[in-house]
Amino acid sequence: MKRVAFQGELGAFSELATYEYFGNEVEVIPKETFADIFDAVSSGEADHGIIPIENSLTGSIHENYDLLLEHELVITGEIKLRIVHNLIVNKGVKLSDIKRVYSHPQALSQCKDFLSTINNVESVSVYDTAGAARKLKDSGSLEDAAIASEQAALDYGLEIIKSGIESNHKNYTRFLVLSKKLNDEVKDSKTSIVFSTKNIPGALFKSLSVFSLRDIDLFKIESRPLPGSPWKYIFYLDFDGDIRQEISKKAISHLEEIAHFFKFLGSYPKGSEVTGQIQERHD
Amino acid sequence: MKRVAFQGELGAFSELATYEYFGNEVEVIPKETFADIFDAVSSGEADHGIIPIENSLTGSIHENYDLLLEHELVITGEIKLRIVHNLIVNKGVKLSDIKRVYSHPQALSQCKDFLSTINNVESVSVYDTAGAARKLKDSGSLEDAAIASEQAALDYGLEIIKSGIESNHKNYTRFLVLSKKLNDEVKDSKTSIVFSTKNIPGALFKSLSVFSLRDIDLFKIESRPLPGSPWKYIFYLDFDGDIRQEISKKAISHLEEIAHFFKFLGSYPKGSEVTGQIQERHD
Repeated sequence: MKRVAFQGELGAFSELATYEYFGNEVEVIPKETFADIFDAVSSGEADHGIIPIENSLTGSIHENYDLLLEHELVITGEIKLRIVHNLIVNKGVKLSDIKRVYSHPQALSQCKDFLSTINNVESVSVYDTAGAARKLKDSGSLEDAAIASEQAALDYGLEIIKSGIESNHKNYTRFLVLSKKLNDEVKDSKTSIVFSTKNIPGALFKSLSVFSLRDIDLFKIESRPLPGSPWKYIFYLDFDGDIRQEISKKAISHLEEIAHFFKFLGSYPKGSEVTGQIQERHD
Repeated sequence: MKRVAFQGELGAFSELATYEYFGNEVEVIPKETFADIFDAVSSGEADHGIIPIENSLTGSIHENYDLLLEHELVITGEIKLRIVHNLIVNKGVKLSDIKRVYSHPQALSQCKDFLSTINNVESVSVYDTAGAARKLKDSGSLEDAAIASEQAALDYGLEIIKSGIESNHKNYTRFLVLSKKLNDEVKDSKTSIVFSTKNIPGALFKSLSVFSLRDIDLFKIESRPLPGSPWKYIFYLDFDGDIRQEISKKAISHLEEIAHFFKFLGSYPKGSEVTGQIQERHD
């Protein structure tokens, strides 16, 4: 059975993404930090890791971009999970009983329209959504609620009062699958790379030209500071194609003429958008 | 006297940036959130606002990019402030007395090498660096310390045990000055814009070409998600020149042929790198 490391507690959106990508027959290994996931895969404790890389509303998770640069792992897959937030309580608690709502600040922010419709409720920021659900169960409070996934409600034996309370339903998080080695080449792949440019005029434009001149589509560009060199940047790029295709090889070889630094991060099948199916646990 | 709104408490790095940019003869208006700064300038409560937009180690402050898009203010200046972190205590406390260190998570992270040299000290995350100093003063604790600016130590009557405890001294935060109207054109300006591209192949490459084909240097590009359109992006760009120069006008006019959406954010003198000078307060 494959062992997959994810960040957060049981019931976290990362865990849902794991089941959607790998299916049910998988051993999940919860980790406290994103760096722990990279370490678990590098050491062989886990076969794969799964990390959130961007949310369609709030943007990139830059810590994971930085970790991809620092570690020698490759991206072998992606999945785009629909984020559905639920208002969760201990059994028997009614909407009018709630005095405080606990969740991750991003989840609270994404549900603020709904929260503004309940009177005199205080929003309290905590570390993660599933952790908010677990603490709610532990406390047994009849005045508190949590915002978390349906999976978290099931895992901790809590009740969902209201489902889909996020303001914008076009709320997806893209997750990346990390491995030690690339999978076999497939037809409909994308490739992720990171590079810095030489100190020449129009350097970024010239870097992008190696793709555009070959009609290679770009999906995403992300800039991050180059540590130790204020106001210089490194660029993360996702482009259409597999590193083992001739046209990709030529584009990369051309980019290396222009780039000061280059690193390949992975080629992997393009992921689809999914709504997570909850899993019954049999411990 | 000019009234300038900044985020945080007295002694925050934003306040130091305010004095460095405007000089001492200024009335500072502390605000709780970045959005409050935009509101204060829009309403006329403040003449200007000052916001952090990027740190040379940790990257962009994306919330402020989003707020620039939503509001009808212009950028009229920038300043790059050297961030010097200090270990701050109540009078008489020695390094060996310290059991807990309070600061903003980013400050704690930037000082983690120093913190790892003190034994058995717990790091505690709080909302902002100056707030950590104020709370330390309020508590009078002889076992706690804060990491904050020299200004915060002075403001709250605290002692600096050790100065410059950040691991990487190339630590600068770039601040932007917000106003209702542009200043007069100066010679050495940069311009900030935001745009989204049409759904055409090589759209970003074509967008950058309007600058490169005119030998206009780009300083920074930042991508953010386009809300409601998962996996589409808007781009923030800083380029060399003033919007009132003919070459800039032509580049923008060319960009508007390619862009789906375009907004001008401001033209302003290029800022220099400064180390903040502390200010004695006379209340």
